[in-house]
Parts: sequence; structure tokens; C-alpha cells
Amino acid sequence: MAQAPKPRLLTGDRPTGPLHLGHLVGSLDNRVALQDDHECFIIVADLHTLTTRPRKHEFGEVPSFVREVVLDQLAVGLDPAKVTFYLQSGVPAVYDLAILLQMLVPKTRLEQVKSLRSMARAAAMPDDAMTMGLLAYPVLQAADILMARATVVPVGLDNEEHIMIARECASVFNELYGDLFPLPEAKISQFPALPGVGTGPVGSGAKMSKSLGNAVNLGDPPTRVRDKIATFTYDDGDRRLGDQAPLLAFARAFLGDEPTAALRVELDGGAITLAAAHARVTEAVEARLAPIRERRAALAGEAGLVEEILVDGTIRAREVANVTLQRTREAMGLESLWGGLVAATEARAKARRKPY
Amino acid sequence: MAQAPKPRLLTGDRPTGPLHLGHLVGSLDNRVALQDDHECFIIVADLHTLTTRPRKHEFGEVPSFVREVVLDQLAVGLDPAKVTFYLQSGVPAVYDLAILLQMLVPKTRLEQVKSLRSMARAAAMPDDAMTMGLLAYPVLQAADILMARATVVPVGLDNEEHIMIARECASVFNELYGDLFPLPEAKISQFPALPGVGTGPVGSGAKMSKSLGNAVNLGDPPTRVRDKIATFTYDDGDRRLGDQAPLLAFARAFLGDEPTAALRVELDGGAITLAAAHARVTEAVEARLAPIRERRAALAGEAGLVEEILVDGTIRAREVANVTLQRTREAMGLESLWGGLVAATEARAKARRKPY
Repeated sequence: MAQAPKPRLLTGDRPTGPLHLGHLVGSLDNRVALQDDHECFIIVADLHTLTTRPRKHEFGEVPSFVREVVLDQLAVGLDPAKVTFYLQSGVPAVYDLAILLQMLVPKTRLEQVKSLRSMARAAAMPDDAMTMGLLAYPVLQAADILMARATVVPVGLDNEEHIMIARECASVFNELYGDLFPLPEAKISQFPALPGVGTGPVGSGAKMSKSLGNAVNLGDPPTRVRDKIATFTYDDGDRRLGDQAPLLAFARAFLGDEPTAALRVELDGGAITLAAAHARVTEAVEARLAPIRERRAALAGEAGLVEEILVDGTIRAREVANVTLQRTREAMGLESLWGGLVAATEARAKARRKPY
Repeated sequence: MAQAPKPRLLTGDRPTGPLHLGHLVGSLDNRVALQDDHECFIIVADLHTLTTRPRKHEFGEVPSFVREVVLDQLAVGLDPAKVTFYLQSGVPAVYDLAILLQMLVPKTRLEQVKSLRSMARAAAMPDDAMTMGLLAYPVLQAADILMARATVVPVGLDNEEHIMIARECASVFNELYGDLFPLPEAKISQFPALPGVGTGPVGSGAKMSKSLGNAVNLGDPPTRVRDKIATFTYDDGDRRLGDQAPLLAFARAFLGDEPTAALRVELDGGAITLAAAHARVTEAVEARLAPIRERRAALAGEAGLVEEILVDGTIRAREVANVTLQRTREAMGLESLWGGLVAATEARAKARRKPY
């Protein structure tokens, strides 16, 4: 009996910085868990960085982040034999597909997407300077997803609307040109975002983010991890923070719910010092990070390994994307237009070679 | 002494119908005049038809119009040895370039473009249904122009703002990434648009247009040309139209200014019947159309000739576009990102083959 093909999964990251603990608990653990039962495509979305950081010195940072992002994922246990890692800008068919899909999406639909406004704000881009590239971000993302014909798309909650747009693209396309694209579904991470580290009483007051400089990176050495966790306090000057304390969010993620409840009781009752609480949480984080750090160093030491994985994956993604683009062009009639021109040209060349 | 390269020129049409007398006097005559002193690229802009006519049955009409549009241009005297005719959708690098240029254009800039709103209205597309593809039309057009590094862009007045956007794309790109693109300049047709034919007193009341069904096509047989010109009256019921008469616009275009002034005097004085005036204008139009019609029939009779010209031109356009895209990617840093990954991969493969 033939085995049913595994469902296709696509997810990934913009290479705007190294991956961190928030990624680990929010998405990387999930990717590792899904890699056996899915055919996984993991995009390194460098074109998407151009939507908010197009300047040359900004893009100049991308190559090293591309390497870091893949290295981080290999270090946490994603297996290149099961996962196709690929560089977005290295798959030409995706640009074609994005341009074609833009013909199907109303501009007003994209203007409703809240995450684009927050991205513009985060990039200090005034409302009237929002670029077409940023407005069209979800359509380019739809092209990424649909080129792989992915049905499972693990994302954070802030990206859910993008997947709805990919779904709408697929469904409008199928309606206009016949069934081609399976409808992708967002798989929203159930894990609450980790708070960022920082010097304020509630950490940085923001979720941990590659671009805010408030992250504990997977590649951080133990002393830096310890120092970053030590920035958390347990009161805001007047009163204890209790369950709102960023330190306890870390504890929940790395110690578990019951040990965290116990830690809270100890902190509230003065049975443990803040420094000892930091140490307990740091120890739990280190229990996760130490083996990752070790694998990371080993992989980083193999010259060209990360690059080879990414180049091989990009070539594989190109093959998949070319097949999808071909089918897209066939469905729309672009392929028969070109094919008709070529056939008439070939027939003419053949006739020319014929003796009288 | 080396000859200075000819300036590059790019112009063209959307294949939404056969070309007509308005094209002949408004742009084709001009193209023929410019072909000796310019390196000409003439686009058959089939992707642009998708911005307002994406449905399958709409695109189903495109292949025959693609053929007609090239045939018409060959028939008026454009020489495929001097002109590269190419199919827009057949040049993959243009999609890439369009996506990259979208990163540089503010959305609000495109919202100011009046022609897009008229295109949406003409396509009976309500304001809130305007697609991203239509909003991004000028950016795709910029990619067409910049891929050819064209500096001379003959267009109608309604397209002038699109060329300004192409110019802005080039100039922002050069500023961000270093000088790459020459700035294109619109060359606005000085010839007033011909009025459309029709049954009303002032013709169809609109300019002659491929999509309004009010055109005298270059391929129309003589009887149809005669019957269409015979739709023009010289009064609107109450009073004579004088210089406003569409018939006199035709006379100016095909008889010249002085004979037209004389014709007006004769019409105003009753020295000529309307039927005789129709005949005089028809004769002048026929003096232009007859040789075009003859060449058109001869060219159409050569099976595969038009297709061969378009396929060869598209292959040539691909080469030019690939060079431009390569340089664009180099300027932005995309090429060195990919090149770095490939180099590291190759070095790894080489090291692997080495004996100990």
C-alpha cells in the first residue's frame, strides 16, 4: 500500500537577527516536533527584510543573520534530511507568483492588515511613507506558501491575518482559474510570547524580539544569559509583581507550572532571595541552552556546512517553485500563449528546412 | 572612432485589441520615425492586461491580440531588424525587478496616479475593488523600462505620470545603492487623440480606443473603413460643428491642415455634400491604409513569421533583462549574499574531495 504523502508545512523567519529563547519556546520546539510528520519548508525570508530595511547598510547585516538563523535551527534539532531550508530571494519563481497573485487581491484588503501598520511603526516609517513592498508583504508571503503548496503554516498570532490573505489568494485563484492551490491553514502558536529582558521593573516591557535588542539569544554564552536574566526584579518599587513578573514567565517556560507556583510562594513569603530565584531560573534555561550551544559550536566549526544546507535547500525549493509556477501559468493561460508562439515558430523553422 | 551607442527606447501596447488609426497617427508613425536612431524595445504588455482583465475568458482573448498588435506594427513599417518586439510575461527577470522596485515606492505616491483611477472606472472596477496589481501597474511598467535601461519612452499624455514614477524608481534606487539606472524620459505624443467613430453627432464622444469598440482598425477592410467614417455628421441637429467636428479631426490627420480648412469652408458654404466630404476623408485614410493592409496580408500569410519575431525578440529581451537584474541584485547586496553561500558550499565540496 502506498504511503499517503505527508502534509506540506512552511514556516520561517526574517533574517533580522539571531534567534532567541522566545523563538525556542514559541516556535522552534514546535518545528522540531512537526518535522517527522510533515514535509517541511523553512524559509529564510530575506526579501521580507527589504520591506522595512531596504537601505544598503541595513541589508549588509543580512548575510550573517541568514547564517545565524539556519545555524540556530540546526542546533535546536531541525534535521536537514527532513527539512528544506531555503533562501527566499534565491527562488526566482516566487517573484513571478507574487506579481500574478497581486492581480487578485484588493488594495483595501491589505490596508486592513494591522500587523503592517505595526511593522511600519516599528521601522519608524511614517504612515504616508509605507512602501508598496510593505503593503504587498502578505502577497509575497502568500507566494512563498502557495509555491510550496503548503497546507500547514505555523505562525505567531500577529501573522494570522497574513495566512488568511494567502488563503484568500488561493481561493480566488481556484475560483477564477480552476482548482490548483490547497488552502493553507495557520497553526497559531499556543505558547505566550516571552517577555524581553531589560533594566526596567517589568523587563523591557515588550515581548522578546530580534529587533528590539531585549532577547536572550540561543548563541549567548552562559555569563550573558545569567546577566540578562538577572535584570528582572520582582517588584515595581511599591508592590510585588506576582504572576505578572517577567521572571515568572521565564520560570513557566523553563521550569513548568507547578515549580513556578512554588517559586512564587517562596518569593512572596521571602523564603528565597531574588538572586537565588534568578539562579534557579537561569539553571533551568541553561539545561535547555547548554546542549543547543554545544551543537551550535560543533556545527559552526564545520566550514561551509550551514551554507551547503541552505544552497541545497534553495535548489530544491526552486524545483518545487518552478513546478508550481508552470501550473499557475498553465491555469491562467500564460503558458499556452507562450507555448503557441513557440510552436508556430518551430513549425516555421521546420518548414524552412524542408526541401521543395 | 567607435560609434556612440544609440539611445535605448521602450514603448508598446497592452494587447487588448487590434491597433487602429489613433495609434497610427498618435504613436506608430512616430515609432517608425525613431527606429533608425534608437535601439528600440517594443513591449507587448500582456501582464498589464491582467490588472483590469484577470478573468480566464478575458485573458483567453489575449493570444490573438498579441499576434494582431505585432502584425499591425510590422505592417506600418517597423523593422524587426531594428526593433526588439517582446512579450512582457515571457521575461522572468522583470517580475523580480518589479518586486524589488516595490520596496522603494511609497503607496501614497501610487494613490495619486489619476490614470489608475480612470483605468479602474473603465474596467467597471469599484474604488474599493482596485487590486494591488492595478495600484502597482506603474511599478511593473518601471521594471519594463528600467530592465531595458531605456531613456526614451514615447507615450500618450495619460501615461506621463507612469514614466515619472519609473524615473523616481531609478533615482531612489541610484541614491540608495549607487548609480545603476539612467533616468528615463517620457516623450509625449504631440498628436491630438483621434475621436472615436459612432452614431452620435460627435462620433462616440470619446477618443478612439481599443477597448471602446469605436475604432477604425488598421486591419479593417475598405468597406468597413468607409462605413465607419460615414457615421460622422457635421451638425448636432441645431448647428454646424465646425472645427469641433470629428470628421475634421480625421481630415486634419490624413489630409493636412490646409485641405481641412478648405473642406470646412466647403461644408459651411454648402459647396460639398456630407457624403462627398466623407468620401474625400475616406480616400485620404485609404491612401495610408491600403499599403498597410497589403503588407499586413502578406505578413499574415507567412505562417509563423509574427510568432518567430516575437519569440526571438523575447529571448533577446530576456538576455538584456537578466544582465540588468544581475546588476540590480549586485547593487542591493542580494548577489553577494547568494554568491557567499555558494562559494562556502563549493569550498566545502572541494575540501571533502581532498585526500588526507
